[in-house]
Amino acid sequence: MADQTVAIGVLVSGNGSNFQAIVDALENGRITDGRIACLISNKADAYALERARKHNIPAIVLDHKGYPNRTAYDQALVALLKEHGVQLVVLAGFMRLLSPLMVEAFPHAIMNIHPALLPAFPGLDAQQQALEYGVRYSGCTVHFVDIGTDTGPVILQAVVPILAGDTVESLSQRIHGEEYRIYPEAVRLFCANRLRVEGRRVHISTAPSDNP
Amino acid sequence: MADQTVAIGVLVSGNGSNFQAIVDALENGRITDGRIACLISNKADAYALERARKHNIPAIVLDHKGYPNRTAYDQALVALLKEHGVQLVVLAGFMRLLSPLMVEAFPHAIMNIHPALLPAFPGLDAQQQALEYGVRYSGCTVHFVDIGTDTGPVILQAVVPILAGDTVESLSQRIHGEEYRIYPEAVRLFCANRLRVEGRRVHISTAPSDNP
Repeated sequence: MADQTVAIGVLVSGNGSNFQAIVDALENGRITDGRIACLISNKADAYALERARKHNIPAIVLDHKGYPNRTAYDQALVALLKEHGVQLVVLAGFMRLLSPLMVEAFPHAIMNIHPALLPAFPGLDAQQQALEYGVRYSGCTVHFVDIGTDTGPVILQAVVPILAGDTVESLSQRIHGEEYRIYPEAVRLFCANRLRVEGRRVHISTAPSDNP
Repeated sequence: MADQTVAIGVLVSGNGSNFQAIVDALENGRITDGRIACLISNKADAYALERARKHNIPAIVLDHKGYPNRTAYDQALVALLKEHGVQLVVLAGFMRLLSPLMVEAFPHAIMNIHPALLPAFPGLDAQQQALEYGVRYSGCTVHFVDIGTDTGPVILQAVVPILAGDTVESLSQRIHGEEYRIYPEAVRLFCANRLRVEGRRVHISTAPSDNP
């Protein structure tokens, strides 16, 4: 009998703590309809590779240095993901912009997490942007990836307060706590086929749509 | 003995429900260091005028139609506010852009409330912008007014969830509930001399700074 669970490919460049949170949610049974088909890093020294090996997840290095341009790299990336049967791509600290080629290969099936309440503070250094603006709340956003930078349809968000004396580090840590909660939750909803994208809005069905 | 409380001038164009929330906070003793010196409306039929009269607050109509341009109107507005000894200007649904002249006459002493978590969704129809973007949380922001549109230093914010099936009306109502809470609170902090602006960040002292 074929495996009916959703095959997830995770892309990383470094530590992979969000990857770990998703692995944990799979292992403790919170996510029941998914499995990680492969972890791909563009850096050979990413600690996430070690995490993957510990959990018997295929850990692959695809170094961007071997490719002449972004499109060539992304072609190899898409081929590798398809080869592993990946249906959902999860960006977990993957420090590269994706080409339209990648986005088109996985329509509404690439997720990213951003450490701010999008559309506020897109791009790099979101926590520092928030502190400099002087907002009272920030948070994180799981969204589907589209062609823009941090512009895709929002799946889940979580809010954290900004406290007097906060630094980039203390705020980042507070936001991380919420990331580890909502990223696995977004993956869980996707795997349970409970996310439906309509325009740029993501509807979450209250019951599994395959069991109406 | 001179009145030591902060003289507040409120500017409105319509219903004035945020004005009412501030009046209530003054009357029930939540704000102890302020008083409303005058309410000014640019529209003769604003319901807020009636509210003011009920509370024996000077209610003044300053119709913009009588003035050739924004600067001329704002000159009259500044003169009227100064005449009433106003130290803090509170915009409560005042549907006019302020000229630099107004902003310079009351540096860091004009407050506005915006129905979104700025810097997200500035300008008009903030609730509709939030719904169309598909965010999971929105809210409101009390900020000092500067030359830009909804760009001034943030004083307080409050967060509300966006629920499945929300309309502009249902979301606006939920945000209003928070507006009536944080706008009086921001006025209270100002009157107690607990707000300090540094660059574009607003620091809130934990104890009244006049009682160290």
